[in-house]
Formats: sequence, structure tokens, C-alpha cells
Amino acid sequence: MNINVTFLPAEVSDIDLSNTVCIILDIFRATTSITTAMANGCKAIYPVVSVEEAHAQAVQTGLCLLAGERQSIKIDGFDLGNSPYEFSKDVVESRHIIMTTTNGTVAIRAAQGSYRTLIGSFLNAHAVCKKVLEYGNDVLLVCAGTDRMFSLEDALCAGFLVDIIHRAATEARLTDAACAAQLMYLQAKDGLIATAKNSRNGKRLCEINHQDDVEYCFQKDIIEVVPEYKDGVIFLKQS
Amino acid sequence: MNINVTFLPAEVSDIDLSNTVCIILDIFRATTSITTAMANGCKAIYPVVSVEEAHAQAVQTGLCLLAGERQSIKIDGFDLGNSPYEFSKDVVESRHIIMTTTNGTVAIRAAQGSYRTLIGSFLNAHAVCKKVLEYGNDVLLVCAGTDRMFSLEDALCAGFLVDIIHRAATEARLTDAACAAQLMYLQAKDGLIATAKNSRNGKRLCEINHQDDVEYCFQKDIIEVVPEYKDGVIFLKQS
Repeated sequence: MNINVTFLPAEVSDIDLSNTVCIILDIFRATTSITTAMANGCKAIYPVVSVEEAHAQAVQTGLCLLAGERQSIKIDGFDLGNSPYEFSKDVVESRHIIMTTTNGTVAIRAAQGSYRTLIGSFLNAHAVCKKVLEYGNDVLLVCAGTDRMFSLEDALCAGFLVDIIHRAATEARLTDAACAAQLMYLQAKDGLIATAKNSRNGKRLCEINHQDDVEYCFQKDIIEVVPEYKDGVIFLKQS
Repeated sequence: MNINVTFLPAEVSDIDLSNTVCIILDIFRATTSITTAMANGCKAIYPVVSVEEAHAQAVQTGLCLLAGERQSIKIDGFDLGNSPYEFSKDVVESRHIIMTTTNGTVAIRAAQGSYRTLIGSFLNAHAVCKKVLEYGNDVLLVCAGTDRMFSLEDALCAGFLVDIIHRAATEARLTDAACAAQLMYLQAKDGLIATAKNSRNGKRLCEINHQDDVEYCFQKDIIEVVPEYKDGVIFLKQS
């Protein structure tokens, strides 16, 4: 088993993914909110890039919620923003959601052609890793980054996942990027929230009074579900 | 002062460099060998990508040494490979060298348009940082990577430099990538050589009996010179 990490979606294009399980990480806040929504009974999420694409998908899909933000603010006319707190059981249970998320969707689409594409976060870290170990395939942790720039929160979560998988599968081979992610996570792990609040996206969320989101997104292992993406839809596989 | 790191040269294209000092890091082994050669009295180094470009430059430049490797082995007909031990005083003093280095040259060229482009390594780390602090400009540490993939040794050196600069200029702002590089360096610093030998390029060098190069490249602050690149030439500025 090989464990690899890409810090930006653009790096994925050079990699053959046919035998690889990809885990998408967009910690602030797309994959954290998706994980929360699915744990709260949401039926399916359709990730799209643009507002236009969201409206087009809404026409095609029928009755569903629209979720998304620009500059961390809910899009005008949408039902939900991108804060995980908005995806509560009373709002999302049994519903379909169309979610615009630029970086998250780019990362998901970069994993096209993978053996499986799973949605990861700190919240469902151990659950995701358990699934990865069951598959036994090579694994690629795909950090979404922000506007084609490295994001610390995604890399730290990648490092957390590398660390969990590597402890359980000590014979697994780590690429240089996987080693690097593990090293930065191990150095930061005793002060993760402070490090997260000092990151670019963390600072921005604090500035707009969403420090509760930062803290929420860095909670470890409070959710057991592992959302999967296939053919344009995120869903939970019935096991 | 802003401190930034790019883990791959391709990331540099999005950044305005006009006010930025770039430091090129290709630890195994181009920038380490360049630093060594300049400390040993080499007059100038012309970094090129291909063997053809090296021969063309040789015709243009006149009498000079040819240096370079493919798959870590000296190119047939060249005077020198890419091991820093080959760039000794008796060989390089007062000489001009044309050096083919794929990743190093790509990284150097990515920094086109910068305020200054300096050649960095573990060997001259403090000297480079001293120069950066004198300039007082924003700084970008450009990791060469290997064939468009992340290289741990370059990122660890970037982290070492971030750490030195940040300790001296505590008000400096670190980007997420600079934070990440510093975190991984701090986690690895008590076992740097072992981590380096376990990296992809480190393993390859050990396999071809160049473990002495790995150890040489991770020596801190044994050299005081700071090579600069401008208009196709690496040289030492007379101060």
C-alpha cells in the first residue's frame, strides 16, 4: 500500500488513479459540511462550481436545497451557506442538496478515474481510514487548497489521516508529500486549533465571527459516516 | 515582510515577484553543488536544462567545464557529475561551469522577474537569511521538487530558512505554506539525516552509493557565500 498526498488539485493530473482510493479534503468548510450533512440524514449532495451550474442542476434534479458561499458569505437566494452548523438534522434530513464549492468541487473532479472517491475531514477521520484499510488499495489524500494555493488546514488533516493509516499499516510506503504532511501534523497536534486560527482561511473565518466553525472543523472523530462521490453525486453507501 | 514557500515551481507563476527576493532550493544536489563550487572559487555557473543547451552554451561561452547528470550518473563526455564533492577547489577555482540540472533550472527560471534570485542550501542557510534580512523585502522560498513532484529535502530546507528568518524578524507574516514548512522542519530537525535518507531522492542516492552526498547536503552553515542568479548566470557579488 502506498500513501500519497497532493497539496494542490493540479498535482493530481500526473497520477494514474485507477487502483487508488482518493480522499478529498476541503476542511474549511466544504468536506466538513458535507460530512455533517450526510451524518444528519441528507440523501445526496451534488457538488458544483458555479452559481449558474447550481441553478441548472436544481432544474434537473427537482426539489432540493441550494447551499453555497462566496467570500464565506451565503449566496443571495440560497437556502444555506457553507457553515457546518447550518446542515442540522431538522434542515437536511431526507433532503437533496446542491452545493457550490469552488475548491472542493475542483478537488473532487481532479480525482476523476479513481477506484473510489471518499469525502474526508477531521470529523470522520478514523471512519475514513478504516474504510481505506478495508479496501487495501493505494491511497491519495487530495487537499483542495484555496484558489490554487496551499491551505494549511487541508494539509494538517492529510497529515492526521497519514498518521492513522500508517500506524495501522506500518508496512505502507509514504511518499515525500505524505511524510511532510505527517511531520507537520505531529508538530502541530498539541495546538491544532491555535494553528488553524492562525492559517489564512482560519483568520478570515475568525474575522467574520465564524471562530466556532474553525473549532467545529477541527474536532476529531465525532462522526462515523464516510460519504462517497461517484458520477456527480455524494451519497452514503448502505453497508 | 512576508515569508512564502512554493513546494513546486509551477506555483510561482501566479505570484507577482517584482518586490520579492527568491531563494532557489534544489538540495539533492544542484543548489548544494552550486554553493560548494562558488565557495571554492568558481567564477560563474550557467544553469541549463538539456545536454544540447549545455553544448550550445559551451560554444558561446568558450573554455569552461561541463557538469551534469541523468539518473544521478555523470553525463557521458562531461567533466563533472552533480555530486558536491566533485566541485573541489583544485577543479573549479577560477573556472566557468555550464551545469545541466532539470529541476534546479526550472525553479530558477520560475523566479524570473524577481527583485533578486539567490541560491540556497543547508550549507549557506544563515548567510542567505542574513542577506534576506538586509534586503528587508518579501521572500519566496522556491522548492525545485523532482519532475513536478514534491521533494521532502527541499521543503525541509525551506522550513529551516523560514525558522531562521522568523526568529530574527518575529513580525514577519508567514503564509500557510511557510508555516507548513516550518512545522515539518521543527518536527524532523533532531533526525534530519535519517529523514533525508528515507526521502525518495535520498533513498536513490543511497542505492547508488552516494550516502555521503546525502550527509554532505544536510550540513548546516558550513559556507558563508550567497550565490546570485541574474540573466542566465550564477555569480558571487563582490561586497
